[in-house]
Amino acid sequence: MSDSYLNFANSSFGARLADLVGLPKPLLLERYRPDQPVLDGTLLLGGGAASELLQPLAKLFAAMGVQSVAHRELPQWLSIANQHGLLSGRWGVQDKPGARVKALLFDATGMTDSSQSDALYGFFHETVRSVLPCGRVIVIGRPPEACSSPRKATVQRALEGLTRALGKELKRAITVNLVYCAEGAEDQLEATLRFLLSPRSTYVSAQVIRVGQSTQPGAPEINWAQPLAGKKVLVTGASRGIGAAIAEVMARDGAQLICLDVPQAQQGLDEIAARLGGRALAMDISAPEAPALLSEAALADGGWDVVVHNAGITRDKTIANMKAELWQSVVNVNLSTQERINDALVESGALMAGARIVCVSSISGIAGNLGQTNYAFSKAGVIGMVQSMAPLLAARGITINAVAPGFIETQMTAAIPFAIREAGRRMNSLGQGGLPVDVAETIAWLASPASAGLNGNVVRVCGQSLLGA
Amino acid sequence: MSDSYLNFANSSFGARLADLVGLPKPLLLERYRPDQPVLDGTLLLGGGAASELLQPLAKLFAAMGVQSVAHRELPQWLSIANQHGLLSGRWGVQDKPGARVKALLFDATGMTDSSQSDALYGFFHETVRSVLPCGRVIVIGRPPEACSSPRKATVQRALEGLTRALGKELKRAITVNLVYCAEGAEDQLEATLRFLLSPRSTYVSAQVIRVGQSTQPGAPEINWAQPLAGKKVLVTGASRGIGAAIAEVMARDGAQLICLDVPQAQQGLDEIAARLGGRALAMDISAPEAPALLSEAALADGGWDVVVHNAGITRDKTIANMKAELWQSVVNVNLSTQERINDALVESGALMAGARIVCVSSISGIAGNLGQTNYAFSKAGVIGMVQSMAPLLAARGITINAVAPGFIETQMTAAIPFAIREAGRRMNSLGQGGLPVDVAETIAWLASPASAGLNGNVVRVCGQSLLGA
Repeated sequence: MSDSYLNFANSSFGARLADLVGLPKPLLLERYRPDQPVLDGTLLLGGGAASELLQPLAKLFAAMGVQSVAHRELPQWLSIANQHGLLSGRWGVQDKPGARVKALLFDATGMTDSSQSDALYGFFHETVRSVLPCGRVIVIGRPPEACSSPRKATVQRALEGLTRALGKELKRAITVNLVYCAEGAEDQLEATLRFLLSPRSTYVSAQVIRVGQSTQPGAPEINWAQPLAGKKVLVTGASRGIGAAIAEVMARDGAQLICLDVPQAQQGLDEIAARLGGRALAMDISAPEAPALLSEAALADGGWDVVVHNAGITRDKTIANMKAELWQSVVNVNLSTQERINDALVESGALMAGARIVCVSSISGIAGNLGQTNYAFSKAGVIGMVQSMAPLLAARGITINAVAPGFIETQMTAAIPFAIREAGRRMNSLGQGGLPVDVAETIAWLASPASAGLNGNVVRVCGQSLLGA
Repeated sequence: MSDSYLNFANSSFGARLADLVGLPKPLLLERYRPDQPVLDGTLLLGGGAASELLQPLAKLFAAMGVQSVAHRELPQWLSIANQHGLLSGRWGVQDKPGARVKALLFDATGMTDSSQSDALYGFFHETVRSVLPCGRVIVIGRPPEACSSPRKATVQRALEGLTRALGKELKRAITVNLVYCAEGAEDQLEATLRFLLSPRSTYVSAQVIRVGQSTQPGAPEINWAQPLAGKKVLVTGASRGIGAAIAEVMARDGAQLICLDVPQAQQGLDEIAARLGGRALAMDISAPEAPALLSEAALADGGWDVVVHNAGITRDKTIANMKAELWQSVVNVNLSTQERINDALVESGALMAGARIVCVSSISGIAGNLGQTNYAFSKAGVIGMVQSMAPLLAARGITINAVAPGFIETQMTAAIPFAIREAGRRMNSLGQGGLPVDVAETIAWLASPASAGLNGNVVRVCGQSLLGA
């Protein structure tokens, strides 16, 4: 369950040996600690003359305590930053690069034609070498599907290719992500920028995240230190692995937990619930009566705020060798059960206004996998469920999103034969597997009351795995 | 430019040696010859009780001369086939599989809930071992985004995970593709089924193809032997490589070619134009005056029917080491030029009613690639162009689609260092690179007058490369 090579390569002897014989040297990833600032270092901002987000970004940087410097093509930033009471300055002098920075952010919202792409090149050409290890690169654009002209939609869509190529190029555990911010959704960016800039997103790279207008009326007051304070949060499959990590992160963020798992896992479940001050709920969620029982439990609690559908099983066999029961149980537990529970909770009114549903899909549901027709079917279905329910739930002030983990270090992946495990671990831009906490942090971001602008997203937690569709 | 290991592994000595030492044995792919039937063997049909396409499929099989047998769960097929004058029969007796077949087709359009997925499992569990080498597997569903209920959208979306997993599982050069046929678009399926069933699609696997209602009024008479007979077809970058293969396939399908390339390639261009009975047009399409010149040329011809934007360049460097000129030329040639030419041709009325625009994107534009920020940006932009222009062009009876090649054996890939080339070649479900003709066949399908229901598609020609997003 641990990547011993990663630790070895980061030891003083191991690093010298790896250099000597030319082995890869994946970096130890930074991970979130409560005493940290959002961004541990300076952010270098870029954009063109028509960048549309400079005012909102200045406001956000002030709120997040992010220190920024401006690329030479963005001289107007200095006065805007000043207006918001921020210290700032120009990065570099003449043609010389400035000090190294922890993050790059390029505001591409003003780009309306591919012929304007020189600004993008100029910024990244001059700055990528100056990003510190475990740094963050964020490009913000406008959702192509909502652009008023094909020319604008085209250049905005082109950003996706650039960010994915940058993700493969930058190394040193630097992540690169693309945020499509809908017009009028600028006030919804904060949760996403806090997540992407901080070590919480350490294993999230090469993702495209759509931020839309709020699904809720009003602007709730957010406690960023404990965004889930007072929130009732159901986590299924909570007794171990990724589920246990989700419960821990949710508890850290203030949640009142309902930890659910099958009766066979009662002991681990009781332990984790006790440790996190939550309630244990032993139940087979795939049973026909489960959705009604859960609705009753939620209503008895006065309604739940967050539901995390983490419970899932694998029963791998090629389809020619697969018994019917293996197909049925995987599809039932991983997909049909989630559908039934969602419908029951929504119809019974057991979800609070502003509720969040977060589902767990998989890279297998995106790329397919040998021996996993059942699992890939179920996890692709989860994506379909999220995308089809999102607009309907938005009308009720509820959001639904999914994470799709890649190679995560768990008991499940520890059981994979060595050579296949090593290949899975290393075939991504960060050169290592993720940890359960990385999936949990991503879910916590989507579950936050501040994430009312995130709906229908599927975010991979895979370190930019090479595998895909 | 040739894969010598593929030929070796398919020789009698090479095959024995590969067996002995455990080397992979990619199969020689079947490729189209004009004297072949659409499907060289029998098709085994599956589906559930509510399958919606049985009548249209029977009509199509009659038109295509496809011989079918029915899975035991689809007994109603026999009488439907009979109504259309088709011989058919039940596949297998009792629990015993029937004779081996060349294709599997599962009609999943009737599935409205994930709890009905047993029919899917039952069909593929019993039949996948009976598919002949270089066989075809097609699943037909309904586009999730147009489904009336989340439950239906979910199970239809789940098909994507299943087909991608099957593609990785089946081996023996069998391709697996998913077709989402919109309601009311059943009369538009023929071009796509002819393509997917035949060896023309030999390197197309794990793709999702959306067939919509016709973008043209009326039903044109199609000459399937020469679908492009009398059509004026522009192919850019036609002097060599993939462009030359496109020109050849287009000419075989009856096209009157306008072969375009840069003046420096005049000699190769003249040769290919002369050989194929077409016209050579030497021009730098990235020059500012090119769009107007092309519009004039098209109008002088009485309008063009097909434009294939194949011309493209690579100038690989990491962005930190990339000169501005390398960024600009790649984005200009690969993307901005296509935008300008499309706009000029459309606005000047130089495209005929029912015209087809086919663009060449790349797997790099989908997955990103180290050293190709410029190329990935431009090729992702091509996808944006196709998706954003499709609805606008449909209103004029014009379609726009793209192909995204994976590893194709060309002079360009022959120049890649051996180890990287071998990895690129083998990292796909067919265990080999594709040939230029495979890209050309895919473009010819999208360019056909019979493809009025295909608009806004991006189809990878990559043998289900493992790489993706």
